[in-house]
Amino acid sequence: MTHTSIRFGIIGCADIALKVSRAILLAPNATLSAVASRSLHKAADFAKSNGFPPEAKIYGSYESLLDDPDIDAVYMPLPTTLHLKWAVLIAQKKKHLLTEKPVALNVAEFDEIVRACEENGVQIMDGTMWMHHPGTHKMKEFLQDKQRFDQLKTVNSCFTFFTDPDFLKNDIRVKPDLDALGALGDAGWYGIRSILWAADYELPKTVTALQGAVLNEAGVILDCGASLQWEDGKKATFHCSFLTSLTMNITAIGTHGTLHLTDFVIPYQEQEASYTASAKPGFNELVTGWEPLPSEHTVTVDLPQEVCMVREFATLVQNIKKKGAKPDMKWPTISRKTQLVLDAVKASIEKGFEPVEIVN
Amino acid sequence: MTHTSIRFGIIGCADIALKVSRAILLAPNATLSAVASRSLHKAADFAKSNGFPPEAKIYGSYESLLDDPDIDAVYMPLPTTLHLKWAVLIAQKKKHLLTEKPVALNVAEFDEIVRACEENGVQIMDGTMWMHHPGTHKMKEFLQDKQRFDQLKTVNSCFTFFTDPDFLKNDIRVKPDLDALGALGDAGWYGIRSILWAADYELPKTVTALQGAVLNEAGVILDCGASLQWEDGKKATFHCSFLTSLTMNITAIGTHGTLHLTDFVIPYQEQEASYTASAKPGFNELVTGWEPLPSEHTVTVDLPQEVCMVREFATLVQNIKKKGAKPDMKWPTISRKTQLVLDAVKASIEKGFEPVEIVN
Repeated sequence: MTHTSIRFGIIGCADIALKVSRAILLAPNATLSAVASRSLHKAADFAKSNGFPPEAKIYGSYESLLDDPDIDAVYMPLPTTLHLKWAVLIAQKKKHLLTEKPVALNVAEFDEIVRACEENGVQIMDGTMWMHHPGTHKMKEFLQDKQRFDQLKTVNSCFTFFTDPDFLKNDIRVKPDLDALGALGDAGWYGIRSILWAADYELPKTVTALQGAVLNEAGVILDCGASLQWEDGKKATFHCSFLTSLTMNITAIGTHGTLHLTDFVIPYQEQEASYTASAKPGFNELVTGWEPLPSEHTVTVDLPQEVCMVREFATLVQNIKKKGAKPDMKWPTISRKTQLVLDAVKASIEKGFEPVEIVN
Repeated sequence: MTHTSIRFGIIGCADIALKVSRAILLAPNATLSAVASRSLHKAADFAKSNGFPPEAKIYGSYESLLDDPDIDAVYMPLPTTLHLKWAVLIAQKKKHLLTEKPVALNVAEFDEIVRACEENGVQIMDGTMWMHHPGTHKMKEFLQDKQRFDQLKTVNSCFTFFTDPDFLKNDIRVKPDLDALGALGDAGWYGIRSILWAADYELPKTVTALQGAVLNEAGVILDCGASLQWEDGKKATFHCSFLTSLTMNITAIGTHGTLHLTDFVIPYQEQEASYTASAKPGFNELVTGWEPLPSEHTVTVDLPQEVCMVREFATLVQNIKKKGAKPDMKWPTISRKTQLVLDAVKASIEKGFEPVEIVN
């Protein structure tokens, strides 16, 4: 690591922190410098079993990590309910913030967090890894191809995974005081993001939750979906669930082409990602087959998507630290739109599946 | 052809009749015996350019074909608006009926047609070809596999194809006096059928059309979707369109497995069909890939799906003709459920996207 490498501290030892600490280790411009847990013992164990460098510091409280002047950026894999408090404190301590999603419980909290980051000149980015996969950029090129795809008209996206009775009873993602947004915040975040991504981050006008959402006794969403409508007639649907088999599809349909993939959140294999691009598909003369056939594209990667994410975040932080740049607003703007749609889905469920207007 | 072969007459020379006349030629228990058009010249041309046997009869009116005592069964590729009149007449003439879909403009008309068939002891089947593909039966085995798929929870289906300005102005499928159900009747029929197929033909309780349906000036649907809910919590969505690139997906998600395919209406290639079965999918330890990976299955076929359809229909007719069996009710029962859901989608659009209860 060079001295320009961004020094990361991690607060909290959630499962996802394993993957991100490895990503920080692998990223060329990042250093894994510290980990904090409310238990010093737990933090030490985490560092030991996750290949932290020997010089990495171990803290028994989040506050003490935030007070460390040798930390540039904090990765925050905490339950959503804790985000507002800790994100604001992280910003006030002039640390840059890589936060797990959902960023906040709602857009009002989101705005408080981003305001704190702006006031303190620190970068914020959420941890939606697939956005940083090189395959995602290749797919975007197809969506922007006037000849082969033309105008986006419809997106369908889903992310569901099956959880066991223990998860449904004890996981933080089913607890109203921890991750109160449940499956919508955890899995739905990806579906909403994928739709916004395909729609060039144009916000829909109206969001209508689909009938049949499943909530637990405490009112936390376990399974839901929504349909989104844009002013220009574009439409989308998504579905998210803790109750059905692992599935993650995007189908984006344009006037001339169709993009399709079935492993958008986490590719089947770390080294590559594949998608199908169908450009001006039609049938043969007797309508007994397709002409042309959709084409399969595979993008191989040097670095896993979560490493690309850390590298991108660290680059933005380097730009601020070394070049005096302002915090980049691209990522928080995308995050905020995701949160806005998420809020609207929740509001629609609460209103008995009535359409909800998106107010930006 | 043996003398037990079922003798088919075709009324109308629609494009789809090319494919089905070839299927009748290829089916081992069917004979292509006659074609009728309102123009004798057109019928003769059709027979000539589609490989009809020299002994096939050419009629200049539908009635004259129906009066031919050497015809056992009629294939009816007429506009939906004409179905009631001609289907009832076909039944009264004691001809068995293979009809294009949608079977009728609504379930009331559907019931009149089926009543006429029942009263006259003739078989009716609709022309939904993919139902008869051997791959469809293999996929059903997966859906019924308690270990690998378990309980169906969600289905998403779409069938869309892009049409040109001429189609949108002149095709019978955009004309309120011909195929008044538009994209819902033409493409939506498949989506609804695929959902019912996955759900073992259990009818949903409620159908809610999705906001954003597109109708032409005459009120014919060009693009729409709906969400379906069952009493037991199962859910489904479908989307159909004349306005977006050719796309035909089914994603059926169970508690343990996921079935997925992208060419369900017409397989990419005539000789085979593929689908993906994902059984108890999960992630590797670091959540950087899937374990196990979904498995790809390819079913090769001896006969194209439309030939399997004709063979199945002709077998049912043979059972009636040669063995004195009663008309089989499996296929009309499935058709009726499709029509019921289709009616509910249309009603929901007309009611401003309110939920509509399915009353069987």
